[in-house]
Amino acid sequence: RGGVQEIETFCKQIIDATGDLVCAFKPQIAYFAAHGAEKQLENICAYIRLHYPDVVLILDAKRGDIGDTAKLYAREAFVRYGADAATVNPYLGTDSLEPFLATPDKGTIVLCRTSNAGSSEFQSLLSDGEPLYLRVARTAAETWRAIGECALVVGATYPAELAMVRTIIGEMPILVPGIGAQGGDIAAVVKAGRDTNSRGLIINSSRAILYADSSKSFADSARKVAIETRDEINRARNVQ
Amino acid sequence: RGGVQEIETFCKQIIDATGDLVCAFKPQIAYFAAHGAEKQLENICAYIRLHYPDVVLILDAKRGDIGDTAKLYAREAFVRYGADAATVNPYLGTDSLEPFLATPDKGTIVLCRTSNAGSSEFQSLLSDGEPLYLRVARTAAETWRAIGECALVVGATYPAELAMVRTIIGEMPILVPGIGAQGGDIAAVVKAGRDTNSRGLIINSSRAILYADSSKSFADSARKVAIETRDEINRARNVQ
Repeated sequence: RGGVQEIETFCKQIIDATGDLVCAFKPQIAYFAAHGAEKQLENICAYIRLHYPDVVLILDAKRGDIGDTAKLYAREAFVRYGADAATVNPYLGTDSLEPFLATPDKGTIVLCRTSNAGSSEFQSLLSDGEPLYLRVARTAAETWRAIGECALVVGATYPAELAMVRTIIGEMPILVPGIGAQGGDIAAVVKAGRDTNSRGLIINSSRAILYADSSKSFADSARKVAIETRDEINRARNVQ
Repeated sequence: RGGVQEIETFCKQIIDATGDLVCAFKPQIAYFAAHGAEKQLENICAYIRLHYPDVVLILDAKRGDIGDTAKLYAREAFVRYGADAATVNPYLGTDSLEPFLATPDKGTIVLCRTSNAGSSEFQSLLSDGEPLYLRVARTAAETWRAIGECALVVGATYPAELAMVRTIIGEMPILVPGIGAQGGDIAAVVKAGRDTNSRGLIINSSRAILYADSSKSFADSARKVAIETRDEINRARNVQ
């Protein structure tokens, strides 16, 4: 399996090219699972923890299961990969999230309003006048935050919904995918989603940085796009 | 890693002890992922396909992601592990399920009403008088079934809800976890969930069979419990 070693080398080069610029790395486990590259993901996570200990390591896994199985998924994320936080799916309810939330010193990032075109299909269904994604946000603020460190996922492609979530959850962090390749607008995201200190957002760009350049200079190009993205975020944060 | 080889050996012994009794095997990927045993899961899936080609291989993964990532999860289930079907989570909407549904000759089993105590928290929220889990069932019947082979997950612990789902989805199959260790009642499940031919249910027992006996005779005990479970299901099917 020569291919999986190339994945590891590529990721480490991206990490070294951007590690001084970012607040978090968010490896997507599906890319490794599809290629049988779990060992390489373990190595990448260990590399991040060793060389960039101040950068938050988020495992993007979107797990959702119950009872003992949920505990095993929490173990996968927090023990096997040593992630600081993991993404999870709320459909199965609070008891399915508890093994993640109850793990000390780890973060649980719950899907709220996802960035895809079809996310309104179920997430926007109204119950007592409240869409499901806001019910999830309210449950996070009222219940999950009291169990452990909790954040929410809201896509950059839905700034109006992002603003609604922010009004409900106070100063809780929000992970925002969907800028870059998916077309979300940074200025709109920051305006809608920042907390009262102009903080509280983890704005994620994956493909626009990873695949900024397909030549041998990909790492330099990734760094350039990461700097541009960081600067654009910080400019937006400074807008009153 | 001596432990992971023991997992593979244990599972193969359970498979050989029950392969002539069952309609499906449903490995839960979390148990392998937590222990770094993906290679062993690959071997187990290959073993099932080789020796029990008429038994449906369901990968219980409960994946849910978007776009290219969803395609990679479908690849993980259907190509890497060679599963005939996989469980998925509907929270992200139809577009997130399409890579699974659109894979030819493969089954997509969507979470509808899960077996855990807290499953009503979001799944029973009413929108226009219809709980979310029935909205999922209706979408399966109206949309997903037209894209590909689709089934639903409804827990044995909720027979009244199972009956409601059956009225909506006609002859679509339903995967029913929650008998055995979780306490669901087989007679109630069959009465509530069977289709008009007294078929259409995949009733799953995991821990009650796997851990029927912790001694060296575990495989014999697993077979005994599997026979009892099968017979109890068939008796219930024959009740008018």
